[in-house]
Amino acid sequence: MMKQLERIKEFGGWLERWEHESSACRCAMTFSVYLPPQAASQQLPVVYWLSGLTCTDDNVRVKAGAQRYCAELGLILVMPDTSPRGEGVPDVAERYDLGQGAGFYVNATQPPWATHYHMYDYVTDELPPLIEANFPVIPGKRAISGHSMGGHGALVCALKNPGMYASVSAFSPICNPVISPWGEGCFSAYLGDDRKAWEEFDATCLVNAGAPLPPALIDQGTADEFLAEQLFPQNLQAACVARKIPLELRMQEGYDHSYHFIATFIGEHLAFHARAMMA
Amino acid sequence: MMKQLERIKEFGGWLERWEHESSACRCAMTFSVYLPPQAASQQLPVVYWLSGLTCTDDNVRVKAGAQRYCAELGLILVMPDTSPRGEGVPDVAERYDLGQGAGFYVNATQPPWATHYHMYDYVTDELPPLIEANFPVIPGKRAISGHSMGGHGALVCALKNPGMYASVSAFSPICNPVISPWGEGCFSAYLGDDRKAWEEFDATCLVNAGAPLPPALIDQGTADEFLAEQLFPQNLQAACVARKIPLELRMQEGYDHSYHFIATFIGEHLAFHARAMMA
Repeated sequence: MMKQLERIKEFGGWLERWEHESSACRCAMTFSVYLPPQAASQQLPVVYWLSGLTCTDDNVRVKAGAQRYCAELGLILVMPDTSPRGEGVPDVAERYDLGQGAGFYVNATQPPWATHYHMYDYVTDELPPLIEANFPVIPGKRAISGHSMGGHGALVCALKNPGMYASVSAFSPICNPVISPWGEGCFSAYLGDDRKAWEEFDATCLVNAGAPLPPALIDQGTADEFLAEQLFPQNLQAACVARKIPLELRMQEGYDHSYHFIATFIGEHLAFHARAMMA
Repeated sequence: MMKQLERIKEFGGWLERWEHESSACRCAMTFSVYLPPQAASQQLPVVYWLSGLTCTDDNVRVKAGAQRYCAELGLILVMPDTSPRGEGVPDVAERYDLGQGAGFYVNATQPPWATHYHMYDYVTDELPPLIEANFPVIPGKRAISGHSMGGHGALVCALKNPGMYASVSAFSPICNPVISPWGEGCFSAYLGDDRKAWEEFDATCLVNAGAPLPPALIDQGTADEFLAEQLFPQNLQAACVARKIPLELRMQEGYDHSYHFIATFIGEHLAFHARAMMA
């Protein structure tokens, strides 16, 4: 059962918020979707946007300025939440980087997380058929993008599902979470002590293990306050170079980790995905 | 003394937040300014943006998507706060529509507001020379715009200061606050019981009294939840028709009162101001 929570006109199209009972996460999940004006009369390609730590579906729809470009390019944008939520869902109230708001796009195997924290299955298995059944999307014409934890999620979803996404992009992604404090904190809680299990959700490890990558674009600000400690784009780049996999990593001089950085380049990312999906 | 609180790169330019001691408001005031890339090498025209009830300088800079257009058009955008603030500044904690966050762009004459609540003087007398002394703006090349309470503010500032602003625009402005519950609440508190004093800060009354209007553009959504009770654009339009003053009032089908509406049309407003200031 899909329940519409909100419908707001924007750039001639509609920004909607929906709630549904998720089988992957075993709770009610919320997502937003932007339907550009073209969606009133035709099927369109879809871009999935995965948000970062502490975000809900709201941040990107308010802060990124993406809807203007979606209206220009004829793209549907789907914006899921970053974790399961609700009273029955485990959380660590004092931590922004574990529990609700910090699903990390994995399938948790450890208590108390294993019941609900299946964001990887939610994004890759549950959401695409739900979107394709309920909105005017061209079946199979998908791209994926995200920011920070969500950039990690986008890369991992693309690497683990060859052929599923025509293209992948990321802003300031956590490229090597097995050595990032954010990644170590979530992976140890959700996946347990076996670091081999962590590597299944690490873009750099997946490339090193031979996973193929669709056309990929990464923007990383050089003034990003999390770059040195958390993100490690150079490790993903080195892995791609070693395996001769093309990766466009752009170090953007002077930009930080915020949505002001995303707003600056989201138009180029959406145009990149539109080209890949029309190809 | 100007104190820089923040500096964030966006669209090749810089989004800055500043604090200064305001003589008009007798407290520290915060504003944001966006300097597009062109500002590094030349003087530019400036648009002042007045925000609505409950807002600070942050809402517009995060939600409107204006910086992209300012970078394209070569405009500086100045975003003041909506009221004086701080521990020594009167407030009504339980009300969003009176006190801090609700300065209404008037000069208060009544206790306890009269000491600090001089947002009209702040916007029209104090801020322009401060901006012109500290940023690369072309002296006198000014336009003003705003949303809701800030749309009211923009119209009133333009009407009361002929020649000061090359153009004025507004989204969902409170066009006739003397008969709007929001206006009545603030005007009675800030200005007292004499309704004649209120008319000095009411766009419709000012037009009726003969004030001239620079080139003016208003966008109003037809699905705006506050349209019928609070905004009265038809009264301003009737006043302008009666006095043969050109006013472009666009009723935008299906749009609400939110920043999603502003984001949709802010580019057209900024282009309108750029044309007027270049003329």
